[in-house]
Amino acid sequence: MAVAELSPSYTKTHFHSSQLSFLSTRLANFRHCAFRPLPRARNSLTISCSVAPNQVEAPVAVKNEEPKNKTECYGVFCLTYDLKAEEETKSWKKLINIAVSGAAGMISNHLLFKLASGEVFGPDQPVALKLLGSERSFQALEGVAMELEDSLFPLLREVSISIDPYEVFQDVEWALLIGAKPRGPGMERAGLLDINGQIFAEQGKALNAVASRNVKVIVVGNPCNTNALICMKNAPNIPAKNFHALTRLDENRAKCQLALKAGVFYDKVSNMTIWGNHSTTQVPDFLNARINGFPVKEVIRDQKWLEEEFTEKVQKRGGVLIKKWGRSSAASTSVSIVDAIRSLITPTPEGDWFSSGVYTTGNPYGIAEDIVFSMPCRSKGDGDYELVKDVIFDDYLLERITRTEAELLAEKRCVAHLIGEGIAFCDLPEDTMLPGEM
Amino acid sequence: MAVAELSPSYTKTHFHSSQLSFLSTRLANFRHCAFRPLPRARNSLTISCSVAPNQVEAPVAVKNEEPKNKTECYGVFCLTYDLKAEEETKSWKKLINIAVSGAAGMISNHLLFKLASGEVFGPDQPVALKLLGSERSFQALEGVAMELEDSLFPLLREVSISIDPYEVFQDVEWALLIGAKPRGPGMERAGLLDINGQIFAEQGKALNAVASRNVKVIVVGNPCNTNALICMKNAPNIPAKNFHALTRLDENRAKCQLALKAGVFYDKVSNMTIWGNHSTTQVPDFLNARINGFPVKEVIRDQKWLEEEFTEKVQKRGGVLIKKWGRSSAASTSVSIVDAIRSLITPTPEGDWFSSGVYTTGNPYGIAEDIVFSMPCRSKGDGDYELVKDVIFDDYLLERITRTEAELLAEKRCVAHLIGEGIAFCDLPEDTMLPGEM
Repeated sequence: MAVAELSPSYTKTHFHSSQLSFLSTRLANFRHCAFRPLPRARNSLTISCSVAPNQVEAPVAVKNEEPKNKTECYGVFCLTYDLKAEEETKSWKKLINIAVSGAAGMISNHLLFKLASGEVFGPDQPVALKLLGSERSFQALEGVAMELEDSLFPLLREVSISIDPYEVFQDVEWALLIGAKPRGPGMERAGLLDINGQIFAEQGKALNAVASRNVKVIVVGNPCNTNALICMKNAPNIPAKNFHALTRLDENRAKCQLALKAGVFYDKVSNMTIWGNHSTTQVPDFLNARINGFPVKEVIRDQKWLEEEFTEKVQKRGGVLIKKWGRSSAASTSVSIVDAIRSLITPTPEGDWFSSGVYTTGNPYGIAEDIVFSMPCRSKGDGDYELVKDVIFDDYLLERITRTEAELLAEKRCVAHLIGEGIAFCDLPEDTMLPGEM
Repeated sequence: MAVAELSPSYTKTHFHSSQLSFLSTRLANFRHCAFRPLPRARNSLTISCSVAPNQVEAPVAVKNEEPKNKTECYGVFCLTYDLKAEEETKSWKKLINIAVSGAAGMISNHLLFKLASGEVFGPDQPVALKLLGSERSFQALEGVAMELEDSLFPLLREVSISIDPYEVFQDVEWALLIGAKPRGPGMERAGLLDINGQIFAEQGKALNAVASRNVKVIVVGNPCNTNALICMKNAPNIPAKNFHALTRLDENRAKCQLALKAGVFYDKVSNMTIWGNHSTTQVPDFLNARINGFPVKEVIRDQKWLEEEFTEKVQKRGGVLIKKWGRSSAASTSVSIVDAIRSLITPTPEGDWFSSGVYTTGNPYGIAEDIVFSMPCRSKGDGDYELVKDVIFDDYLLERITRTEAELLAEKRCVAHLIGEGIAFCDLPEDTMLPGEM
């Protein structure tokens, strides 16, 4: 797949990890450190970690091992802990690397602590957090890393920070891409697509070059569907199925609104699909959703509310929250990211499903191929998913799905230059908003 | 205990829940709602919850029961779920009420979601969150409640918001008092003590009047030791042992700094005491702390670092973080609150202890009686604690303990009017800072 149209101005500036690989040969005689400090290169920085091995007198379960190709680690400030050497950690799984972009932002400030505490991947899964930020946010990244240190999470074994995606994505098994530029005053949606598209094209290339071959990518930064498509197209060596755009917060909000209307607790609402784009054209599907196992329409006999108010309530929830709270919904967004990850690593309950923005190629619904579209998914808990086949459609639902599909196809034409499909032609049907935009 | 000196200007404004009790008689025929909306009185507000019971056609596990004296609940918008009626919830414990003050602030924004997710009290403990805010923050409180709704936490069964402590503290088993006014420009520490002292005197009275008779109170709002003392003195019917001032973040930071210096993972550091005040006079105790079970001094043979740099590093960590991160450490503070709660509800590991600011009366260390002082504690996991007896002291440690003790005694003299001890006489030895203050 050709990606020749990518803006070279962005790609030129990153710092290839291979340039540092000579350093790894100098590590053999040194211990590694819990928080692995990074080389003091232009775009990465040491986290405070004043290890002085000569002062360690008492026996410590540290293993002198041949360093792997850890280019971000140098000098004496590298300690690796042998988790198999200690009673309380020897039954643990192998450490996994998790990258989080936009790591100095508010969503990440919630998410990183959830990842580190064990509530996402479980109490026997040690984690390495790799924080991707910007030049501007670098000091804040250090602050986040310091707060992670002060939290003493037993499962958190490594933290590194950098502004170079090629460094951060090295060997990651999960890439949670939160960072994106918000739409500035007067910016057209086309401008937003371009500026963020370039970031995600670059990150796709970096994932393609250095991430685990089966890395799972969840794109949260908006416009997330098209950002996910761009990222995927720039990472041809990673399965297209591994890319997700987050629509889980929309799903959660839709469940809550149905529960409130029906007067039941939200855990009684199941089979909730968000179709299409994470924008105001999104389609919360009340035709297939269920309450206490019954079709929604049999429980909420208010067709007008369902058709006119429900969808709007879900779509506008973000905006209402911004008005009340003065900022966007970081806490519940991070909860929904955790939900999205858990849905992929635990088997989906019998008969239920979850929504995720995934690649449409081969979908059974007749949705246009080659876009990222939120659809109903089930997982065996192995990180993979399959699309749900037994869903029904009516004219109302199909009409709305067609509208969100048209928007995504238009967004795709806007970013043709970022996905190797020639020159962009931007004919967005209308200047739709992201959920929460005012 | 006389509390006659309390400023009447604050106490006059609250809205007694008894004034609403007549409403409860109107509830018998209505279901209750998951998020119990509050009466639209001056100082409490309904959370959006469009329950329309007439539309519920499918069987729903909702029980029509006689309402308890829930004065904050009115109209048709009240549903109570019978957790014993459903397979997945019938083995759950009884719902507990948890009050959080400063609920619209950043620390609470982390903490509330941890409480709701089950990671604090466990996967079989349903919770009711009672959010206390101010008139100014009321819209933000609604936003927080909406985000809690959208998070679909199965264990979160009730959320209520109010600016009246007498309403919020009704029947609470935990009161997590985060809210406090920060020191404004040019404000003397005496002024800070007075302004926050009045808030905590009021909250102590409210706890005394309406909270569970065995409520556990953790004071986080600064100056937290003296605020806790004031709160306790105004709640004579609640055991003095139930009041805590949070020094757990200091303990965690101290452990991390010792680990980094020794080149070991932080989980190898134990028996870490913070003595005294949560201020820059605090004393992180490296004499009794252990690394891998060995006395710290046997592992870190750098007495100068221990005596001169270590304590300063711990005390100044908050300030360094504010510089880097641009705001104070909300995430790690909320983690340390969770640690503090867990330390009281799970048995302390054999041979270890934790720090908490607790009432000194009857302490075995010779510390002045009748103040709130951080000391080493152990718990059987029943919510209670006992002071650790086998600690040692040397001249260095005693000298520093005496200094922080003098500061707390001076703070106490400053708030004499708030604890029923006559007229305040403010002779603070120096204008010490809170950790993190610049």
